[in-house]
Amino acid sequence: MTADERLPQPAATEIDLVTVLHALGDPVRMRLLTSYADGAEHSCDPRHLGLDHLHKSTVSHHMRVLREAGVTTTRVAGRNRFVSLRRTDLDARFPGLLDALLAAAPGTAVTPSAPRTTTPTPIPAAD
Amino acid sequence: MTADERLPQPAATEIDLVTVLHALGDPVRMRLLTSYADGAEHSCDPRHLGLDHLHKSTVSHHMRVLREAGVTTTRVAGRNRFVSLRRTDLDARFPGLLDALLAAAPGTAVTPSAPRTTTPTPIPAAD
Repeated sequence: MTADERLPQPAATEIDLVTVLHALGDPVRMRLLTSYADGAEHSCDPRHLGLDHLHKSTVSHHMRVLREAGVTTTRVAGRNRFVSLRRTDLDARFPGLLDALLAAAPGTAVTPSAPRTTTPTPIPAAD
Repeated sequence: MTADERLPQPAATEIDLVTVLHALGDPVRMRLLTSYADGAEHSCDPRHLGLDHLHKSTVSHHMRVLREAGVTTTRVAGRNRFVSLRRTDLDARFPGLLDALLAAAPGTAVTPSAPRTTTPTPIPAAD
């Protein structure tokens, strides 16, 4: 038995603005941001994120970029991984930025064909 | 004699958030943004932008990315080109975003002659 762990991520005070912007300067990652905007934990399953048209490894790559930039945090619970937005850290470091981004994000209203599931369904880890 | 012209740029209503974030997800371009934050027109001379350690063609490339993203506008007057921030367009399209970015930007207070102290550019992920 091990306690829940986090995948590597920058400390709150080390989140870099340019790195965050680079992470979000991609349509898939911006789409993920809008999915995470509800503050809930999300599974890594592309189907739960409306990204089932992408290969699992591609989604994993985008998730890693977001995590390493400090945008998201990933909790590891056994074989499951749950991703959520680091809203408190981002709001403290870049006041107003996240609100402005989410208000402007084109994908905040997700397409009907890809319903967004906010319930963190436990599934086997992506990798 | 020709009137002042503008280099090609997207219409205000066509400025895309992800494209703007991608444009600003680079330390040199973020540095340029902070230089343009004063609202004035700036010459394209790297020395006037505190970027004299970069080749002129490199600075031109970064300026083009900003312009094509809709972040800046370039006025052509004879042989001279003057770059300024599209603050009104950006504020209208993404309310609060520019203010949040400039408040958070590490290089907002930059003296033109000072060497760039921003962190080295991370190798961009292959998108």
